[in-house]
Amino acid sequence: MTSTTDTHSEGQRGWLQSVRWNGEQLDLLDQRLLPEEIVYLPLDSVHGVWEAIRSMKVRGAPAIAIAAAYGVFLGLKDSVEDGAISREANRRRLAGEVAKQADYLATSRPTAVNLFWALDRLKRLTQKLVQMDISHNEMKQAILTEAIQIQAEDEETNRRIGEFALELFEDGMGVLTHCNAGGLATAKYGTALAPFYLAQEQGISLKVFADETRPVLQGARLTAFELQQAGVDVTLICDNMAGAVMKKGWVQAVIVGTDRVAANGDVANKIGTYSVAVLAKAHGIPFYVACPMSTIDLGTATGEEIPIEERGEEEVTQSFGKRTAPQGVKVYNPAFDVTPNDYVTAIITEKGVVKAPFTENLAKLFEE
Amino acid sequence: MTSTTDTHSEGQRGWLQSVRWNGEQLDLLDQRLLPEEIVYLPLDSVHGVWEAIRSMKVRGAPAIAIAAAYGVFLGLKDSVEDGAISREANRRRLAGEVAKQADYLATSRPTAVNLFWALDRLKRLTQKLVQMDISHNEMKQAILTEAIQIQAEDEETNRRIGEFALELFEDGMGVLTHCNAGGLATAKYGTALAPFYLAQEQGISLKVFADETRPVLQGARLTAFELQQAGVDVTLICDNMAGAVMKKGWVQAVIVGTDRVAANGDVANKIGTYSVAVLAKAHGIPFYVACPMSTIDLGTATGEEIPIEERGEEEVTQSFGKRTAPQGVKVYNPAFDVTPNDYVTAIITEKGVVKAPFTENLAKLFEE
Repeated sequence: MTSTTDTHSEGQRGWLQSVRWNGEQLDLLDQRLLPEEIVYLPLDSVHGVWEAIRSMKVRGAPAIAIAAAYGVFLGLKDSVEDGAISREANRRRLAGEVAKQADYLATSRPTAVNLFWALDRLKRLTQKLVQMDISHNEMKQAILTEAIQIQAEDEETNRRIGEFALELFEDGMGVLTHCNAGGLATAKYGTALAPFYLAQEQGISLKVFADETRPVLQGARLTAFELQQAGVDVTLICDNMAGAVMKKGWVQAVIVGTDRVAANGDVANKIGTYSVAVLAKAHGIPFYVACPMSTIDLGTATGEEIPIEERGEEEVTQSFGKRTAPQGVKVYNPAFDVTPNDYVTAIITEKGVVKAPFTENLAKLFEE
Repeated sequence: MTSTTDTHSEGQRGWLQSVRWNGEQLDLLDQRLLPEEIVYLPLDSVHGVWEAIRSMKVRGAPAIAIAAAYGVFLGLKDSVEDGAISREANRRRLAGEVAKQADYLATSRPTAVNLFWALDRLKRLTQKLVQMDISHNEMKQAILTEAIQIQAEDEETNRRIGEFALELFEDGMGVLTHCNAGGLATAKYGTALAPFYLAQEQGISLKVFADETRPVLQGARLTAFELQQAGVDVTLICDNMAGAVMKKGWVQAVIVGTDRVAANGDVANKIGTYSVAVLAKAHGIPFYVACPMSTIDLGTATGEEIPIEERGEEEVTQSFGKRTAPQGVKVYNPAFDVTPNDYVTAIITEKGVVKAPFTENLAKLFEE
């Protein structure tokens, strides 16, 4: 596998796309190398996509879902029509392959519901395609088209989330965010970062504080980077400075993304989100969660049911090329935490802004 | 300057002393190299000590104070008696030199009050010595003896702090700490970590959670290391995991050190301490502050008056040996924050445990 490196000079402004379909394969921006290197990995197999998700080369719930959708197609790419069986039998066989690849990709990361949503969407599509009088190749093409459609919808969704979120902010406000729910985490705009891009387009000035987000530093490497690239006023802080910055009166709102919202409004997101929510409440600062509808999982009753991935100790003890903790020390490294709904001021989706009572109001949103 | 490296093999247990007077010079453990390397820097000049404090090779309020006391003596070491003037005039001249070196060392770090306390103690001593009929050399020796005494008293102080603190804990409890207020930060035992050493000696089992403490990672590099060396059950977490660990019910108390306590009980300590205090309160967990009396500054009315050192952006953007944030990004990097007294359950000193109302009860402690 060869990779392409885009020249990246300081001051260069613009959009970085985390997932690009080039017609034949997936060009995936290796987010682990940011901000120092901009490298696109060409992935032409489902295994490559699985590994890229697992190792967080691609991260961000919507971007994972988009990559996985293309991954399913890559898993079928070499499937050819069997002349010995009927067209319908061929379609059934292909549907089986889709289910197999989707189930495989679902094992890459356990927490992000968008991943399962995208894979289910492809599985549901294949159930319909099986009933249609189409060729094996046409069915493969339809699956690719669906992946492309998932990506296009995500961009439109995020723009709408950004518009709703921006209505909650005022010119000159300080807004704190945790982790990266930005353009890099999605098709474009991001979820939590979408209002900052739209504010920038509209000449509204917001002062963003980006938590660096240990252990993997998505805030430092990605959020600070992509906002800086876009010309947004962003200040990087360590996670443990959030309270001090709030106490100074510099923060008027918090906005974060999420990997899964339960039916009752409990929110799973990057580890540290819960601490930020508690701090926001203690300082009387609204705490907003931005996400597409696909992140809301009415099948999960409460945050208690959301599995929390625990990751290796090396992320904490030697994440950046140097060991910074003693050999053999015990480490607790959960990748996510759950913020109970009573810390959530509002959940901002492409269909509008939802406030408490969440169980009732989230359900309504799906009925509309 | 040559340095000595102690062989450090895994599993080796024991005490590490951060400041050692070897009879002629100061052997200072370079804490920036821990836990990978145990290197003692031989310092034979006041400038070397100033630089070691400034660059945080030695850190921890009491250890800084001890190093500075020896630093004053190193600044006088080459001072010789002037035969052309009287013994008293020589003593006055030496007192002037002490004041000059002390004032110089006071510029090394702005927040830790113990530093100023130790330097003032030496200045006050010289005022007495000037009145005594002693030689220039005897006066120099008395200043060295005072530095040795400051170190010895610190060890005894910390043992007493540990005894008082341990009375607040119960066998089997989970206790969270932030930064390093351990043996490495002091002559021995530490302040906040003293109860863990004493518990270990007494067969009491405590489960310690150590915040890694960004940006300089004193928790990962020092606290986790020295507790592991001593056989204490310690689990390393990232700062942003403190809330999640508390929510799980794993933490029954928080204990931290401090760089300065104001007369009203406001507490300045390593950045992130305030966030931990807010999280502790939200979870109904007591928040204890351990410090020697010398850290309590009745001359500072409230935490608002404590100057907060801001440090360079490179600590945040490239502390792991690799740049982890974009070039030119704005960074806010305060080294300390202030926790208001209403978040403080008790302040534990060598003279006992003080609770609210702090203004009244801290003043009483000094009258006793």
